[in-house]
Amino acid sequence: MADPTKILLAEDQIPTSWVNVLPELPGGALPPLSPATMEPAGPDDLSAIFPPAVIEQEVSAEHEIRIPEPVREALGLWRPTPMYRARRLEEAVGTRSRIYYKYEGVSPAGSHKPNSAVPQAYYNQQAGITKLTTETGAGQWGSSLAFAGSMFGLEVEVYMVGSSFDQKPYRRSMMRTWGAEVHRSPSDRTEAGKANAAFETGSLGIAISEAVELAAQRPDTNYSLGSVLNHVLLHQTVIGQETIAQLAIAGETPDVVLASAGGGSNFAGIAFPWWREKQRRGLSTRFVATEPAACPTLTQGVYGYDFGDASGLTPLLPMHTLGHGFVPPPVHAGGLRYHGMAPLLSAMVKAGEVEARAVRQNETFEAALTFARTEGIIPAPESAHAVRSALIEAQQADEAGEERVILFLLSGHGHFDLAAYDAYLAGDLEDPEFSAQERDRALAELPQGAPSIA
Amino acid sequence: MADPTKILLAEDQIPTSWVNVLPELPGGALPPLSPATMEPAGPDDLSAIFPPAVIEQEVSAEHEIRIPEPVREALGLWRPTPMYRARRLEEAVGTRSRIYYKYEGVSPAGSHKPNSAVPQAYYNQQAGITKLTTETGAGQWGSSLAFAGSMFGLEVEVYMVGSSFDQKPYRRSMMRTWGAEVHRSPSDRTEAGKANAAFETGSLGIAISEAVELAAQRPDTNYSLGSVLNHVLLHQTVIGQETIAQLAIAGETPDVVLASAGGGSNFAGIAFPWWREKQRRGLSTRFVATEPAACPTLTQGVYGYDFGDASGLTPLLPMHTLGHGFVPPPVHAGGLRYHGMAPLLSAMVKAGEVEARAVRQNETFEAALTFARTEGIIPAPESAHAVRSALIEAQQADEAGEERVILFLLSGHGHFDLAAYDAYLAGDLEDPEFSAQERDRALAELPQGAPSIA
Repeated sequence: MADPTKILLAEDQIPTSWVNVLPELPGGALPPLSPATMEPAGPDDLSAIFPPAVIEQEVSAEHEIRIPEPVREALGLWRPTPMYRARRLEEAVGTRSRIYYKYEGVSPAGSHKPNSAVPQAYYNQQAGITKLTTETGAGQWGSSLAFAGSMFGLEVEVYMVGSSFDQKPYRRSMMRTWGAEVHRSPSDRTEAGKANAAFETGSLGIAISEAVELAAQRPDTNYSLGSVLNHVLLHQTVIGQETIAQLAIAGETPDVVLASAGGGSNFAGIAFPWWREKQRRGLSTRFVATEPAACPTLTQGVYGYDFGDASGLTPLLPMHTLGHGFVPPPVHAGGLRYHGMAPLLSAMVKAGEVEARAVRQNETFEAALTFARTEGIIPAPESAHAVRSALIEAQQADEAGEERVILFLLSGHGHFDLAAYDAYLAGDLEDPEFSAQERDRALAELPQGAPSIA
Repeated sequence: MADPTKILLAEDQIPTSWVNVLPELPGGALPPLSPATMEPAGPDDLSAIFPPAVIEQEVSAEHEIRIPEPVREALGLWRPTPMYRARRLEEAVGTRSRIYYKYEGVSPAGSHKPNSAVPQAYYNQQAGITKLTTETGAGQWGSSLAFAGSMFGLEVEVYMVGSSFDQKPYRRSMMRTWGAEVHRSPSDRTEAGKANAAFETGSLGIAISEAVELAAQRPDTNYSLGSVLNHVLLHQTVIGQETIAQLAIAGETPDVVLASAGGGSNFAGIAFPWWREKQRRGLSTRFVATEPAACPTLTQGVYGYDFGDASGLTPLLPMHTLGHGFVPPPVHAGGLRYHGMAPLLSAMVKAGEVEARAVRQNETFEAALTFARTEGIIPAPESAHAVRSALIEAQQADEAGEERVILFLLSGHGHFDLAAYDAYLAGDLEDPEFSAQERDRALAELPQGAPSIA
């Protein structure tokens, strides 16, 4: 066992600060715009629903932001997370490359999401807030915030998309186990819910509207978001920083860093600290954001100002988008079915600092199965996109006669996604096509009057 | 962070041998008996279904048995497992005691079971076996063997109790994801299955009969068991050995070591290495096996020879039993619904080396909820018995004005048991009573002609 399979860090090696790439973003940072005025949205537009510390992080010019000690202590329940050398996977596919993966599925909620839920709960508690509202689709973010709320004594009220509420009872039970209230959306508790009562299965857009409406109305209640915004990406950078320490122990530097990209937070979490390391140490590391071919925001979308939500209620964000009215086909990676992409990641792609790759659903599940049967862990369908991407890199390297050091993020486990594996094993898994017509229709509805940034 | 929450070991600290208490068992080791002759069952009785190395371990007089390097490497996918100081739990219940827990839920299958599945798969592969059969109830053991089979290139055929097969589709999917064949029992693939076709919901007894029948018939196929037998308990001793190293880092020795007890393997896994340590170092550590009040084998059973299975097919084992015909009420801790108890653990209880405690279902779920809301991890219902037991110890210590060092085993996570949490949260969880009449009826059917050992 001279060469270990796992590389672990001690608890005092949890990073002490987050990596903020905002001040060095290629092309400079573009502000969100108020939809009413098309003027930059300021802190005042956000203070009804976010605490001061989070608003500050959203626009901070600091290169490093200190992680409060109570947050580090709560992260210590599962961090630092392990990094593995995927020896059995390498052998099974017969590659000469060395594949490493960072595993975030050891968190209580089973994914990277608690990395941001915990500081958000902490900052809200510090600001005297007693309740958080949020929306959840498949349930990953809702469970993470429920868990984080229980750590800091905050009530959590989750609006869960109706169809998921009916189909995913176990994610719902998980949230309740951590003490959260979970409501089926559309509910009769908000004006937004009542106005949309006819849309019985609900949508993420409606659920966001319900959660934001309540937070805006009540002084003791704030709203919490699980991806896309700058502060969420910032909180995820503990992931990449740990891998810098872990690969140093292995005596390696990555040729390529890979993760899946839905809203962008898990990708940013592993990639941004390495991107800074690349600038500082003059590395030649590549970065590849991997998205589903059925919802190819980075590879088939446009770069422009669009609403963050489907209903057109949020400020306009500068990002890659398929149009906020684009409805992705129902692939099982629910966390990647988002029309837009985090502004920070979009800017990195626009500047050519990050590549994008789209992969199909069936090849992704095939890769997930190979991974489960060699490395043991059953990946979440979202995370399986990173597995597939890593195998593509390894194959390209072998074809080019190269040995690459490949680092990817396995963002979560698939314990609540086994119905999707069932469908794959039965040969019933659909492999939905992206509809360029549907995208063009949605892009035609982009908000008018915003400055062009393409 | 001078005092870390987690105590981790490096991969080269995975134990290099297993702790075998058989040669120093108080009262001496009693042999299993052949039901036909009531004579001690010898290796020949087992060679049709077990590989030589396993049979040897079943009766070994060695104090330590070396762990083969390929087994250690496969265990290295998730071992050493973390040990935590439960600071938030201590604070929540306001105890002066210090509570530590070892967490086995980080294994791919989510419990301690792979600790034995991996060496069993390895030894069978070494013996030229190409297929393993087994039975599974709730699915924990079946998934662990499916995972282990995928590590060593063995086919795995699982007979899953019919009612579980219908109600627990996700455990089934998990086994198939790792490449196992899963059959609903009773099946039409065996004589035992056909003979019991009328018992549509199946039983563990029927599933065992199906798996053993196939293994006994085919020279390339063996059978694999997940608890009760000496070799299974032996394989679990990696758990306790790691906690000896981990508590040494914390500078502590435990006043009491606790775990749940169903068949006995997870309890033995943490307790037996500490029991040896107690003899060698003259510690005053107590050991408490914790069982459900609805199936109180150790606290309400008799010590005698009984069949290991419900159908009366296996050799007679010297153990605590409620009678092989005892049908435990349907508590959610499926892994603890067993009429008997591992002979090694039974002998320890008989000799007064290990105490036994029974806890009720609702108080157990209440403890599980407190744990989830403080430590983050949602415990499996089986493991929650150990949580409840630890809280009882802490309370007793506080009442006695003592500070105890409490170590317990959290043997797995509850990701596939959330329906039980739902029932508890809804106030619908039954709290079934143990039926002494039912036990007495079952005890009256104990096999005749075996020597008395009480």
